Amino acid sequence: MSLLAVGTVAFDAIETPFGKTDRIVGGAATYVCLAASYFTKNANLVAVVGDDFPEEEIRDLNNHGINTEGLQIKKGEKSFFWAGRYHNDMNSRDTLVTDLNVLADFDPIIPESYQDCQFLMLGNLTPKIQQTVINRLNNRPKLIVMDTMNFWMDIAMDDLKETLKMVDVLTINDAEARQLSGEYSLVKAAKKIQEMGPKYLVIKKGEHGALLFGEGQIFSAPALPLEEVFDPTGAGDTFAGGFIGYLASQNEVSFEKMKKAVIYGSALASFCVEKFGTERIKNLSQEEINNRVNQFSSLVSF
Amino acid sequence: MSLLAVGTVAFDAIETPFGKTDRIVGGAATYVCLAASYFTKNANLVAVVGDDFPEEEIRDLNNHGINTEGLQIKKGEKSFFWAGRYHNDMNSRDTLVTDLNVLADFDPIIPESYQDCQFLMLGNLTPKIQQTVINRLNNRPKLIVMDTMNFWMDIAMDDLKETLKMVDVLTINDAEARQLSGEYSLVKAAKKIQEMGPKYLVIKKGEHGALLFGEGQIFSAPALPLEEVFDPTGAGDTFAGGFIGYLASQNEVSFEKMKKAVIYGSALASFCVEKFGTERIKNLSQEEINNRVNQFSSLVSF
Repeated sequence: MSLLAVGTVAFDAIETPFGKTDRIVGGAATYVCLAASYFTKNANLVAVVGDDFPEEEIRDLNNHGINTEGLQIKKGEKSFFWAGRYHNDMNSRDTLVTDLNVLADFDPIIPESYQDCQFLMLGNLTPKIQQTVINRLNNRPKLIVMDTMNFWMDIAMDDLKETLKMVDVLTINDAEARQLSGEYSLVKAAKKIQEMGPKYLVIKKGEHGALLFGEGQIFSAPALPLEEVFDPTGAGDTFAGGFIGYLASQNEVSFEKMKKAVIYGSALASFCVEKFGTERIKNLSQEEINNRVNQFSSLVSF
Repeated sequence: MSLLAVGTVAFDAIETPFGKTDRIVGGAATYVCLAASYFTKNANLVAVVGDDFPEEEIRDLNNHGINTEGLQIKKGEKSFFWAGRYHNDMNSRDTLVTDLNVLADFDPIIPESYQDCQFLMLGNLTPKIQQTVINRLNNRPKLIVMDTMNFWMDIAMDDLKETLKMVDVLTINDAEARQLSGEYSLVKAAKKIQEMGPKYLVIKKGEHGALLFGEGQIFSAPALPLEEVFDPTGAGDTFAGGFIGYLASQNEVSFEKMKKAVIYGSALASFCVEKFGTERIKNLSQEEINNRVNQFSSLVSF
């Protein structure tokens, strides 16, 4: 089924203990669409860039079957730019630069041809823009998945809570789940967050895997134990793209399917961190993905 | 097969966000033996207490089928006492009191009737005493499992490394694995630690479960997501007791069996934290344990 992904398409400059990059292509929607492209050939992008964004990068997305009709290119303006430096543990990072540029007044226009989308991925953006996207769709999608971050909890909690009422699945990390709910126990946190709106909740725990809550059940997905995490940028968005992409390919929303979706999302994310930026998830084979999913399976079987 | 457990039998005074206890019975070997008693009826204890240690507590151990012939009772001396206060996250704690008492000159005497033990659990003690136990056994046990902690890495690293050469399995937490190896990546840490001696390594990650390394394979065990951790004291020792108890009951040492042993250990530990001290693991039914293991199974199946 068709998938609509809304989020940033941007430039990142990344420093990790393993090296640093100049401006490379990043952005939540970029990672989401690339990851989802391995599951659905009907992925549609809504985002905004400046005219500094390379045409060949857009062609790269098209070559992955991603429809970029909804990608606005603002003449004479610059793309969103983020620079960050990861600490040695690769779990924490400092933001060095955030230049909103075109993102400052992003108006998410939905092309008419996207209106029949059944699966909607709201990448990390202001909660207001996420609401606007939902309100501009003629029909409510079968499934709305939303990502967000602590930043919006700090400065726009009321808006965030409004948006939460409108979505089916929320994906956040464990610290964010604790902040949003005010509960330390993730089980209690999940209950409170589910009462805020989302029937399903995915709590991402980085090197410790992910928890899926829904339908009164809990699923625990492992993380693949890795020798090295080269660059964690985009891992969460890649997870989300694999997650919703798999569900779109199955065209079924159930806890059983979501468990598999969490594993496919985790598998894609485990590739993402192997190289800088989108390099690794631009070049995956179906066989590599299947082998990785099998690794997840044997990792937990007893 | 027969199991020998060496470690502390002691008093604890515990404060958690949920309440506090006066002196209650604790100690690594207490938890190990109680947990193991659900798997083997041939568990033998070597430890030392003062004559302040209640006889009914020793009878309690005997009622679980635990042989206390090797429990030395020092006349006119006091049992080891530890007092601690857990923080709100239940992952970190402050030690308020450590009174070594009888532990200060503990000489682990192995009764003749214990000499045929096939499975040896070395609870957290000075690495020198752990070595002494191994050296006093006429025949090397089929499997030696060792627990330790960061304290010995700080003050007795050389002794610890000597002991590591003599054991088959090491159980430590993730921070300790990083400290012992000097590697942040747990996969790299595991490789280095396995080169120090133990063929198998269990890294305990608290609320994030546990990782088992050995025979070139990795197994990831989930933790049961709990609404509340009431008191984490003894959870690691209970894990170790369930782990080695299960292996002793199977009388087989292989990666496949160890995976199940990690799950049984995790299941027992998940009971331990439900109440203060040993209260919960003193009173378990086989049905409760089997149901809990089934919960672990459905938690990860996809």
